[in-house]
Amino acid sequence: MAKNQTNSSDVHLAGIGVDLHLELAGTRLRAGLTDALREAVRSGRLAPGTRLPASRTLATDLGIARSTVTECYSELVAEGWFTAQQGSGTRVAQLAAPLRAESGGAKTGTPARRSTQGLALGAADFAEFPRLAWLAAARRALATAPPDAFGYGDPRGRLELRTALSDYLARVRGVRADPERIVICAGFHNGLGLIARALKSRGARSIAVEAYGLGLYRDLLREAGLDIPPLTVDEQGARTDELERLDVDAVLLTPAHQFPTGHALSPDRRAAVRDWARITGGLILEDDYDGEFRYDRKPVGALQGLDPEHVVYFGTTSKSLAPALRVGWMVVPERILADVLIAKGSVEVVSVLEQLTLAEFISSGAFDRHVRSRRQSYRRRRDQLVTAVAQSSLDIRVTGMAAGLQAVLELPPGSEGRVLEDAARKGLLVSGLSAFRHESLGQDDSTRDALVVNYSALSDSAWEGALRELCSVLPSRPEEAR
Amino acid sequence: MAKNQTNSSDVHLAGIGVDLHLELAGTRLRAGLTDALREAVRSGRLAPGTRLPASRTLATDLGIARSTVTECYSELVAEGWFTAQQGSGTRVAQLAAPLRAESGGAKTGTPARRSTQGLALGAADFAEFPRLAWLAAARRALATAPPDAFGYGDPRGRLELRTALSDYLARVRGVRADPERIVICAGFHNGLGLIARALKSRGARSIAVEAYGLGLYRDLLREAGLDIPPLTVDEQGARTDELERLDVDAVLLTPAHQFPTGHALSPDRRAAVRDWARITGGLILEDDYDGEFRYDRKPVGALQGLDPEHVVYFGTTSKSLAPALRVGWMVVPERILADVLIAKGSVEVVSVLEQLTLAEFISSGAFDRHVRSRRQSYRRRRDQLVTAVAQSSLDIRVTGMAAGLQAVLELPPGSEGRVLEDAARKGLLVSGLSAFRHESLGQDDSTRDALVVNYSALSDSAWEGALRELCSVLPSRPEEAR
Repeated sequence: MAKNQTNSSDVHLAGIGVDLHLELAGTRLRAGLTDALREAVRSGRLAPGTRLPASRTLATDLGIARSTVTECYSELVAEGWFTAQQGSGTRVAQLAAPLRAESGGAKTGTPARRSTQGLALGAADFAEFPRLAWLAAARRALATAPPDAFGYGDPRGRLELRTALSDYLARVRGVRADPERIVICAGFHNGLGLIARALKSRGARSIAVEAYGLGLYRDLLREAGLDIPPLTVDEQGARTDELERLDVDAVLLTPAHQFPTGHALSPDRRAAVRDWARITGGLILEDDYDGEFRYDRKPVGALQGLDPEHVVYFGTTSKSLAPALRVGWMVVPERILADVLIAKGSVEVVSVLEQLTLAEFISSGAFDRHVRSRRQSYRRRRDQLVTAVAQSSLDIRVTGMAAGLQAVLELPPGSEGRVLEDAARKGLLVSGLSAFRHESLGQDDSTRDALVVNYSALSDSAWEGALRELCSVLPSRPEEAR
Repeated sequence: MAKNQTNSSDVHLAGIGVDLHLELAGTRLRAGLTDALREAVRSGRLAPGTRLPASRTLATDLGIARSTVTECYSELVAEGWFTAQQGSGTRVAQLAAPLRAESGGAKTGTPARRSTQGLALGAADFAEFPRLAWLAAARRALATAPPDAFGYGDPRGRLELRTALSDYLARVRGVRADPERIVICAGFHNGLGLIARALKSRGARSIAVEAYGLGLYRDLLREAGLDIPPLTVDEQGARTDELERLDVDAVLLTPAHQFPTGHALSPDRRAAVRDWARITGGLILEDDYDGEFRYDRKPVGALQGLDPEHVVYFGTTSKSLAPALRVGWMVVPERILADVLIAKGSVEVVSVLEQLTLAEFISSGAFDRHVRSRRQSYRRRRDQLVTAVAQSSLDIRVTGMAAGLQAVLELPPGSEGRVLEDAARKGLLVSGLSAFRHESLGQDDSTRDALVVNYSALSDSAWEGALRELCSVLPSRPEEAR
């Protein structure tokens, strides 16, 4: 993997297509490796979600002790640059906005440059959080909360929030959600973990996932001991017809807006998955992460509305309001509700005060107003992106629906890696589609070179600069688009 | 276990010492059992934390199908009356304040009586939450939060909060806590789960626990795959000298105020556990759940201050502010920090906005003011309890330190069950010491009959009534105190 093993070397990490300049001199060996990797993340050369080589492999390639690599990885995990989960190795943290930037006197490493533009998925500047409206809701919630609201809470979540969500989800997403069947969780990742445990306790062994999606969720399901065969993803969404030949207990889908490729599940495919669930008794996990955001027409209703007894519906505030709230919800079929509550256990993890505030925020109409305003802003950004890309390159097209908080830019075959490198060199954080590919798919699927551009996470002023930078790194002439 | 098996019967659940009147007629069999158990919880006859008989056992005893019992348990879990965790059976929910009370039109069962007085552990009326001061902190926190505060958050927790806690814990509890070594969690239960996973990943197999404590935590450790041998508890706290003969990797202690018996770990025992940790490399888990509340003299500093490299220090807002916040913290030795962060994973579960608000609440001094005011109030209640008990009974003494949010009333041997029944009949929710006993201890340890009285969870007016009711059920004459 390494080109050479001298003390100062340019090392090519073949598995992840990254060149690192490493100073591996003498006693500074571990520090040198740590610094180089940290710098690679900070500069964007190592993209969020990238899986690092196994410590044994890297140690062999560099001709150094494995413990040196292990210690280096541990340190970067402790600092928040890497994440490591049992059984799935070490990855670059999804939250790639450099974590040390906020900590001021970081004890190691150089401070992150704030000039880095966040167009990557998971970028986390939310300049537009409705601070005043949220505070007003908190004030009303605190003023009216009964004394028992300050206790440990109902493990299902606070009834006020479940009632507000029941109304909201029925109205906006066509979800049939009795408050008794809503379970509050600390975001989608937390909720998916609960469902995975409930499924395991019922004897489930496998769950189909979309061939493109967040590796973080695949890791979670794998760690829960589930097999996760992939469903092909095309312009009609996931190939749910493939479920017939897979012997799976459940399927995880993003029907309203496939993440990240951006297509809606076609009516035929919706029918196919519904039929599959009815015939086999399988469970559909519907991740409705950005269902409120569709710009060309009214959003298609949630799959759950078609068959509440076979669908677990998931929603969160992470796209509509801010990830910082760490609140999500699940609408759970009657038949697995008890198992989900067992998985959640008797101790609530989601702040009760925040649940009450969100309930008030929703029922007062503030949530609708905020979503409407955000929808206008994101639609405008998407239009600007489409226009700017069309003007700067003949080879690139924006694919997927006019919806959501991110868009996909299809690139000429083979060009994704180089575009990402050019972007990183300019301090532009952006995601490549390959980072979302299911691990069981080969690297030869080169027709899907693309960028996934998150246009939601920047202030208006930063957005314009980032868009210009983005266009400047797109291949604009045929000879560059080999 | 059952006295008889007719359709309408008084059933004695021997394992848990409770008599149930069951209507088990015809098709209403399952509903009858469900209603009877629900009513038993509601009335206090089945105390929080009580472990229910295995479904197979109960079914055999009642002469009914096991599936009927299973369905009944599932329904009560779904309704929140029972909790069930894999591997540890079904228990009455710790949060015994009836969950259905808030849900208005409950679909089954009778609404809970609000007249039930909450002196039980886990009772959850927090009339004194500092609503205005909290809201003011939220306003300041929201006004000054940078845009990236609305993102997914640093998995260690927000730096503002870790910094505020670092100062606070050093000042108030003598904890040596660099912000880099503080990890925010969603309360003690959540934090203990993270440590258990980290210990397991390091090869740990067993952790000693105090012979009296919350079964919920023992369950958690057992489910994590750890053995949990008990340490004897006496008037000097846990017998840490017993660690020598136990081959354990760690020990979970409540050194400042043994929970629930109420004694402080004596200086000799503190030295013994510290020496054990240094010699064996073992880890001390210090649950400092109510360290701020000592009434007779200045609180003894945390064990962690003696040896930060061998102690994981845990604190939460659950006693000092309110459980509703679901925020806790751990101060973690350097050597296991990376493993704890791996266990926590890259996705934060604790609301970032709440972390910022708490940071502001602490650093502004509002937290100190609130704790001071609560301390005065709890000290007064404890004094009232001691006086009232002394006046009403010669046989009962309040044991343990003048500290914390609960007190222990030692009862004449063999009288605990009857006192609890009398209390339940009057609608008084109070805990028996036996509910906290380690499962491996025999039921013959009859010298420890006692009540654990939580005097923190009621409004001032409700407190006076509850105290009167409590005194009225205490055995007052020798002939009653068999």
